[in-house]
Amino acid sequence: MLFADIDLLDENLDYRTHQWVGVSDGRIAYLGDAAPEGADAAAYGEVYDGRGKLLMPAFYNAHAHAPMTLLRGYAENLPLQSWLNDRVFPFEAKITPEDCYWGTLLSCAEMARYGVVSFSDMYYHMQEGARAAIDAGLKMNVSDTLIAFGDVGLDELPLRAQDDRLVSELHGAADGRIVVDCNIHAEYTSNPRAVADMAAYAKANGLRIQLHASETALEHEECKQRHDGLTPIRYFESLGVLDVPVTAAHCVWVDDEDIDVLVRRGVFVAANPASNMKLGSGFAPIPKMLERGVNVCLGTDGMASNNNHDMMQDLYLLALLYKGATHDPAVVTPKQALAAATRMGALSQGRADCGYVAVGAKADLCVVDTSGPSWAPMTNPLVNVVYAGHGADVCLTMCDGRVVYRDGSYPTLDVERAKAEVDARTKRIIGEL
Amino acid sequence: MLFADIDLLDENLDYRTHQWVGVSDGRIAYLGDAAPEGADAAAYGEVYDGRGKLLMPAFYNAHAHAPMTLLRGYAENLPLQSWLNDRVFPFEAKITPEDCYWGTLLSCAEMARYGVVSFSDMYYHMQEGARAAIDAGLKMNVSDTLIAFGDVGLDELPLRAQDDRLVSELHGAADGRIVVDCNIHAEYTSNPRAVADMAAYAKANGLRIQLHASETALEHEECKQRHDGLTPIRYFESLGVLDVPVTAAHCVWVDDEDIDVLVRRGVFVAANPASNMKLGSGFAPIPKMLERGVNVCLGTDGMASNNNHDMMQDLYLLALLYKGATHDPAVVTPKQALAAATRMGALSQGRADCGYVAVGAKADLCVVDTSGPSWAPMTNPLVNVVYAGHGADVCLTMCDGRVVYRDGSYPTLDVERAKAEVDARTKRIIGEL
Repeated sequence: MLFADIDLLDENLDYRTHQWVGVSDGRIAYLGDAAPEGADAAAYGEVYDGRGKLLMPAFYNAHAHAPMTLLRGYAENLPLQSWLNDRVFPFEAKITPEDCYWGTLLSCAEMARYGVVSFSDMYYHMQEGARAAIDAGLKMNVSDTLIAFGDVGLDELPLRAQDDRLVSELHGAADGRIVVDCNIHAEYTSNPRAVADMAAYAKANGLRIQLHASETALEHEECKQRHDGLTPIRYFESLGVLDVPVTAAHCVWVDDEDIDVLVRRGVFVAANPASNMKLGSGFAPIPKMLERGVNVCLGTDGMASNNNHDMMQDLYLLALLYKGATHDPAVVTPKQALAAATRMGALSQGRADCGYVAVGAKADLCVVDTSGPSWAPMTNPLVNVVYAGHGADVCLTMCDGRVVYRDGSYPTLDVERAKAEVDARTKRIIGEL
Repeated sequence: MLFADIDLLDENLDYRTHQWVGVSDGRIAYLGDAAPEGADAAAYGEVYDGRGKLLMPAFYNAHAHAPMTLLRGYAENLPLQSWLNDRVFPFEAKITPEDCYWGTLLSCAEMARYGVVSFSDMYYHMQEGARAAIDAGLKMNVSDTLIAFGDVGLDELPLRAQDDRLVSELHGAADGRIVVDCNIHAEYTSNPRAVADMAAYAKANGLRIQLHASETALEHEECKQRHDGLTPIRYFESLGVLDVPVTAAHCVWVDDEDIDVLVRRGVFVAANPASNMKLGSGFAPIPKMLERGVNVCLGTDGMASNNNHDMMQDLYLLALLYKGATHDPAVVTPKQALAAATRMGALSQGRADCGYVAVGAKADLCVVDTSGPSWAPMTNPLVNVVYAGHGADVCLTMCDGRVVYRDGSYPTLDVERAKAEVDARTKRIIGEL
């Protein structure tokens, strides 16, 4: 595809008008302020009329539980313990592998709709989740959840064999779109032996780790009581977890010393502003993290606490709420927020050639229709993207050069079937409860 | 129009499936779970296929500065004083009446697009703003800004004659769509004599008052220093302002005694969550206000601090952020938030027969397309509206029975012209600075 005469946000997220961008073999092969010459131009296939549109890097969702679309609207307005114990856990106990496939496929549809091409996921029955992402044409960092109560090591858990199987069957599958990560659900749902084993397993296999850390004040404080004053971040560091690349979701209650560790170890912090507000967890110290150089990326989390995968809504929150929380309107610039939602997310997934618009990068792109009334005047296009635009303004999403959403159509999946399946499966599960 | 076989949120915001709603003479004339009989049905004109759609009360924007679309993206990421003194005030000094018309018309386009039918506005050149609302087919509570430094009374200000003229020319105009309100910009931009005069003027003329109160901590504290410990709310009460119906925007820093006053006087508090966060003002005590029975409504504020008029985005914020700020996920229910954005907003504008779906109410409606992937499953439709839905899902907006937005079209206005005018006028003003 050749995007013709289109405005864009370049690799520095700077605005350029009237550009031509050619995509071939899944990558950006041409970028210039005029059309490529003759025969070259034809090689890109369809010419896309870019007038009135903005080409951007697509979004990378750094923290999700994709099958949880099944729970959308089911666990609302509840204190965290009741949310978890009375609603989420009993519901999840009824979810089958096939349910996970359809829940993930619907998540993929939502993400494609809103310009998201890749997501880091933490759940169960991950073969099914990965199958959905492959079918949908998206990228996914798959991690099967480690939960290990009692003094049990990784080798004694079924997860060990599952992870071996995930790695052999899926790591690098679908032309590298599927990446298998290791997982540690959280400090409070595991024991030091299993955590250390998982760290060693990740190191031995060259894998990354996804985990939750310091989501709630209770978790953070109880961890310190259990582990000689170690916070979740320092507990994980002490067990070798941070020796491999880690994406730590939430980090709402991290302290200054934790932030030092996050910087020193290059940990990717997946901010989940919607989820953290909805569950009453609080506001992460994102301004301080950005100032100190933490790799901040952005996630939608599960649909029982968000309740959609519109990353532009989360982007808006990321660029908005910390100004309110700190009483400082200068913190978290639009560019920092947009980088978190794009390039930093790609890096958090180990996808070094993704998340920016330049020749050689993977063609993970979204096109935003800037013709709506919220986009005028175009005094500051980047500000319009972050604060005035909407996920629904995305009119084309491309992953590795393949169109996965365009003008209401989903070329890779049957969205009506996905909606109907999730609706029926949710009804079945609620009926069983 | 006859909405056929449509799901809806009724006057209690409860969900009903497969309803028929007939609109005639600007009002809801029929509501039932079957089509009206024979000749009656034909009287409603077009039959709208409601399958896969949700009919809701339209939104009422309780606090806006509509011409400020001209400033969208112009004053970003700045401390409040610099935002105001270095960017907003110098820009505003260049705005002409015709600029106000086009800025307001573009705001009207945005609002119609996102299901908003009515807005309370506080700015200058209000004849022009009202003209735009009339042209756009929307409702508007017009208030020309009182700013009065020094010991000057209302009679000595040009505003007195302007308000007389507004009242005689526009109060009740366009079949009641235009309402003229009085205005007090804020405590810190006026003197007690002018404020008391305005209160008396409003009382004598049977008008409502729009004002700003306790937006920032500085304003709140300085007011107490200037006025023997009186907060802005108690200062206004002491001068008779609260003897008439008042919409007080922001109220971020109100204390418990202020909240008592707000309840006792039936003041409408226009929450502006986006603006308060973006300018670093803080979080209003909305949960406490709701618990104590304050009339909470919702506003978008000006586009230099939001940056769009998508009320569903503000609705989402209203239902989300106070859970984070109070660490209590049970505060501000979806129903409370939606009532603030609809019925309470209508009441704040003195529009008693607006803001709910029932026979006899004004036909101020929006239709939401629930076919997008974020709407499945439909476990809790109201929760989906508030947390999963998007302003862009609005596919039809109706004001007093007249369609003002439908499927990308704006029957009442030329949106391309409005965008082009605002773009050109903004460029002109920036060029003059």
